[in-house]
Amino acid sequence: MSRILERLESPAELKDLSLTELATLAQEIREEIIGTVSQTGGHLASSLGVVELTIALQRVFTTPDNNILWDVGHQAYAHKLLTGRLDRFATLRQLNGISGFPKRSESPHDCFDVGHSSTSISAALGMAAARDLKKDDEKVVAVIGDGSLTAGLAFEGMNQAGHLKKNLIVVINDNEMSISPNVGALSSFLSRKMTSEFFLRFKKETENALNHVPRFGKDLLNLARRAEESLKGFLTPGMLFEAFGFDYFGPIDGHQLEDLLETFQNVSRMKGPIVVHVLTRKGKGYPPAETNPALFHGVGPFDRETGAIASDKSGAKSYTAVFGQYLAELAQADPRITAITAAMLEGTGLKEFAERFPERFYDVGIAEQHAVTFAAGQACKGLRPVVALYSTFLQRAYDNVLHDVCLQNLPVTFALDRGGLVGADGPTHHGVFDLSYLRNLPNLTIAAPRDENELRRIMKTALLHEGPFAYRYPRGNGLGLEPAASIEPLPIGRGEKLCDGADGVIFAAGVMVEEALKAAETLLAHEISLAVVDARFIKPLDQELLTSEAIRTGLVITLEENVLQGGFGSAVLELLADEGITARVLRLGLPDKFIEQGSQAELRSLYGLDAKGISQTVLEYFGTPATTVHSAENN
Amino acid sequence: MSRILERLESPAELKDLSLTELATLAQEIREEIIGTVSQTGGHLASSLGVVELTIALQRVFTTPDNNILWDVGHQAYAHKLLTGRLDRFATLRQLNGISGFPKRSESPHDCFDVGHSSTSISAALGMAAARDLKKDDEKVVAVIGDGSLTAGLAFEGMNQAGHLKKNLIVVINDNEMSISPNVGALSSFLSRKMTSEFFLRFKKETENALNHVPRFGKDLLNLARRAEESLKGFLTPGMLFEAFGFDYFGPIDGHQLEDLLETFQNVSRMKGPIVVHVLTRKGKGYPPAETNPALFHGVGPFDRETGAIASDKSGAKSYTAVFGQYLAELAQADPRITAITAAMLEGTGLKEFAERFPERFYDVGIAEQHAVTFAAGQACKGLRPVVALYSTFLQRAYDNVLHDVCLQNLPVTFALDRGGLVGADGPTHHGVFDLSYLRNLPNLTIAAPRDENELRRIMKTALLHEGPFAYRYPRGNGLGLEPAASIEPLPIGRGEKLCDGADGVIFAAGVMVEEALKAAETLLAHEISLAVVDARFIKPLDQELLTSEAIRTGLVITLEENVLQGGFGSAVLELLADEGITARVLRLGLPDKFIEQGSQAELRSLYGLDAKGISQTVLEYFGTPATTVHSAENN
Repeated sequence: MSRILERLESPAELKDLSLTELATLAQEIREEIIGTVSQTGGHLASSLGVVELTIALQRVFTTPDNNILWDVGHQAYAHKLLTGRLDRFATLRQLNGISGFPKRSESPHDCFDVGHSSTSISAALGMAAARDLKKDDEKVVAVIGDGSLTAGLAFEGMNQAGHLKKNLIVVINDNEMSISPNVGALSSFLSRKMTSEFFLRFKKETENALNHVPRFGKDLLNLARRAEESLKGFLTPGMLFEAFGFDYFGPIDGHQLEDLLETFQNVSRMKGPIVVHVLTRKGKGYPPAETNPALFHGVGPFDRETGAIASDKSGAKSYTAVFGQYLAELAQADPRITAITAAMLEGTGLKEFAERFPERFYDVGIAEQHAVTFAAGQACKGLRPVVALYSTFLQRAYDNVLHDVCLQNLPVTFALDRGGLVGADGPTHHGVFDLSYLRNLPNLTIAAPRDENELRRIMKTALLHEGPFAYRYPRGNGLGLEPAASIEPLPIGRGEKLCDGADGVIFAAGVMVEEALKAAETLLAHEISLAVVDARFIKPLDQELLTSEAIRTGLVITLEENVLQGGFGSAVLELLADEGITARVLRLGLPDKFIEQGSQAELRSLYGLDAKGISQTVLEYFGTPATTVHSAENN
Repeated sequence: MSRILERLESPAELKDLSLTELATLAQEIREEIIGTVSQTGGHLASSLGVVELTIALQRVFTTPDNNILWDVGHQAYAHKLLTGRLDRFATLRQLNGISGFPKRSESPHDCFDVGHSSTSISAALGMAAARDLKKDDEKVVAVIGDGSLTAGLAFEGMNQAGHLKKNLIVVINDNEMSISPNVGALSSFLSRKMTSEFFLRFKKETENALNHVPRFGKDLLNLARRAEESLKGFLTPGMLFEAFGFDYFGPIDGHQLEDLLETFQNVSRMKGPIVVHVLTRKGKGYPPAETNPALFHGVGPFDRETGAIASDKSGAKSYTAVFGQYLAELAQADPRITAITAAMLEGTGLKEFAERFPERFYDVGIAEQHAVTFAAGQACKGLRPVVALYSTFLQRAYDNVLHDVCLQNLPVTFALDRGGLVGADGPTHHGVFDLSYLRNLPNLTIAAPRDENELRRIMKTALLHEGPFAYRYPRGNGLGLEPAASIEPLPIGRGEKLCDGADGVIFAAGVMVEEALKAAETLLAHEISLAVVDARFIKPLDQELLTSEAIRTGLVITLEENVLQGGFGSAVLELLADEGITARVLRLGLPDKFIEQGSQAELRSLYGLDAKGISQTVLEYFGTPATTVHSAENN
């Protein structure tokens, strides 16, 4: 007999299924997710945790007539399977396949594009406001994890939602985790033990009070005062959200379809802002993921039977690992170093640091803005904080970098992992804007290493520098170099010429250097001889080397894994223009569009940023003269 | 007899003064602030509100041995007067004078640079963490307004502070306002009436319950349940902060020195995170400011006796006013238009809109991130939200613009007031990064008007455009043009050539066009003939016009009130390089540093961005040939 999942034409048909059939469907969805993700990799644990929740929400608030906003969106695999994407599910996160996140262009059932956390309440409130202006009556439901609630953006959304009193349902998907275990005072609000503790303590206090009150009714004010004391620190989640102007329901078991359906049916008839607090378990239904949800958060292909994750055969360490290990080494020698991350302890490679120097390690939760300003405060007092974030998430803290760090010229280091193309996570996660948005900041030094040892040298250089410093390195493995015996700091603003050539010079940033060297070799066979320079620093540029090479060869080819608008190549143009050097500049990088998902290799190939693509572009340039070359010596 | 204020050598001497002397000192400080600000302009109301608070804090937590972080910092005038800046106070906010905000480079008593709101808790927590690692024992005190608490950053800081349990004092300066009256659910927590309401309701509920409970003690659980119900929505500020892990004290009268001193002395001996809730009155002691604190928030020179604010004699309307009026006009005709601002109803000129279309106007409080994502949600549902912010404050929402608006190509309009140099508020407030940080965003159109009617035309163009659109206009008055009879939309990506010339072309953005025209006229007298183009669009550029003019004249001079890194001039360089045109490009704009305070005219003159400076640069260019001009036709 065919699966229910295959027979479902649209989520509207969920209404025709019995509770038993819905439970079977949940099982089928889990099987499908585990089967596919074991092949493609993806966000397994969070998607398995919300299978029943997804079914229940769709049965009551069916899309696209209503709106379900999945915060972050990495948990939306069940949503995709229920809304017409079963046949394409095997293409998940692959080039030209379906996205690992909700995407409006992919389906009318996806009402808001996501990837970064904590946007759902704000966006949902915007939709509710639009609905009310248009006098429609669709429902708007935001589903947000407890981890995502620690971001200030979620709080800003809650604050206005409680104020506007629009009809809006916020489902808190509480699995007591963000990607790392959840941190911060807020998480204690959501503790599932709180309600019972509250009652126990309240009961005891009240009994005591009443037993000692001889004049009935007269001392009620004292009672009230003492009761209030007993309440301090025993706020229930309900009280918190009620205080924000929401009606609160829960906590309810997020794996009991019957409870979920009853609750959602009830709240669907209510007015105003509502919170439904749902308890779920990450990885539910797949024991390896239940046991180790962090490992199975974003996971590569794995063996479905054993849960064994496919190991990397290259033998080279990831840049993340190189960073983490060397930072611990530096911290051993320098007690001023602290490490700050935003819910990415493992993702940024800081586990060793956190274990060896727990008093100098801070996981602030999903709160990049705070991470940066917190670091600024530390730097004011003589510490050397290293803020380790994914490049794409530092976007959240642009003003904090500018206003709290660069303005005061504070020695805060930004270690930007996942700089450049990240692969399957796609447009929301590529770290391809950092060189552009950081380069306009006064006082900031920006560097990118071409290999593991250069990363170590740059890290040491940053530590010795008396001002803000950002370095970015890519997702994935290094070249497999052994650690150098001695790590020497670099002179700031100096590049390194790696090979010589007469016909032009490639100025490359970061891991593009390796591709440049390969391309230069290929081009030699075509009798084109290019010098290759590792720029090392995006800011400040090596003015002497750049101008001398530009004048010597008349052709500068810039290479960066970053958008071309305002990035490294633009810095080269600016310097040459300011020096009055009118050499030709070919800028290779990413075009002015959001870059799709695909493996890093596929995307580099697609955008001509591998050795082959670079050679091709250069050959075309030399084969086809530029349409207009104007000499500007008019003065 | 000389004033106490003059006799004070350092804030440490406050300990030697009696309560009566401290009260006299408060009066002297108020006189000094009112006298100076009536001449210089400045943030009057907020500074007058914290005179006693400043004295009390300095007496107990004397700087620089301890740290007092003034959030935003516009209320720190009393702090400046008490910490050695009385003799320079008349230079407040002027070129080469003392800053209107705390500034580490100005005094060791200023421990953190500020200007933007809501950074104090995060920075203070960083300082506390550094102190503890170094085993020091200085105190760290963050003073934050109730308005600043609505920003997500403050919440992120609170959340980690409660978790880390460091010794840290947060003083909430509660005047029931941000710049506009405070909004959002959070503000209700701080209502001074809440505590008494809580008790009244609790008492009533408890009495009712007890009167109907025959079996004493047995139904206490019911009582507890009902009591909890009665508490919902009646959270006291104390309970809220206690729940975050803080000990709470207050509310106390922020104008009673004795109460303030006693409370601060008490809490100075306590451990862990502490909140002191202080009630103050904006404008305290100066009736015109008490009556109209919004008007006297950031105010120009005024008549001290009458409170009459010096009127602008130019007769021209501000760009802010032109924007506000025309947006209301557009909204009259198009019901899809909404307006969103972040605690800047008057500053962004939206008063008329808010009055005429209250159901389409949203003040979200100091919450720029939410403002943008809230707009994205509205745009998804067919509305045309206009997010009106100061350019410098949009920096807080860079990722929201990128990830929530541009990625989905949503028709959200960003109306950026105070684009370019803002004058006396200085480095934290200049809107000189927007062209750079916005230009790297795919799908975004960016424009800048040269005069009032161009602003109107651009506004209409944005409304008709099916994608994200940002326009920026300056602080201050327009050229005084009458509204055109008919406002025609502009073709996107087309500039306008305003005058012709053979020796080069000035490509100017926004209000720089006017200066360019004047400079071109001056230069004609020196027999240098320049064409002038109003670029109108920073993105996309007018490719046809730019390339044809570059080829025709061989010299492009770009003009922008923005940093030169990655800005408008870089866009011109990029386009010319991509087209293979090696014309000379002179880029005029702001250098790679934070720009100091000073009047707009002074700063434009200082950086050569007025007609005189532009002419000078061009004359030098024509008088002094570029050092190296290299022809790159090597293929």
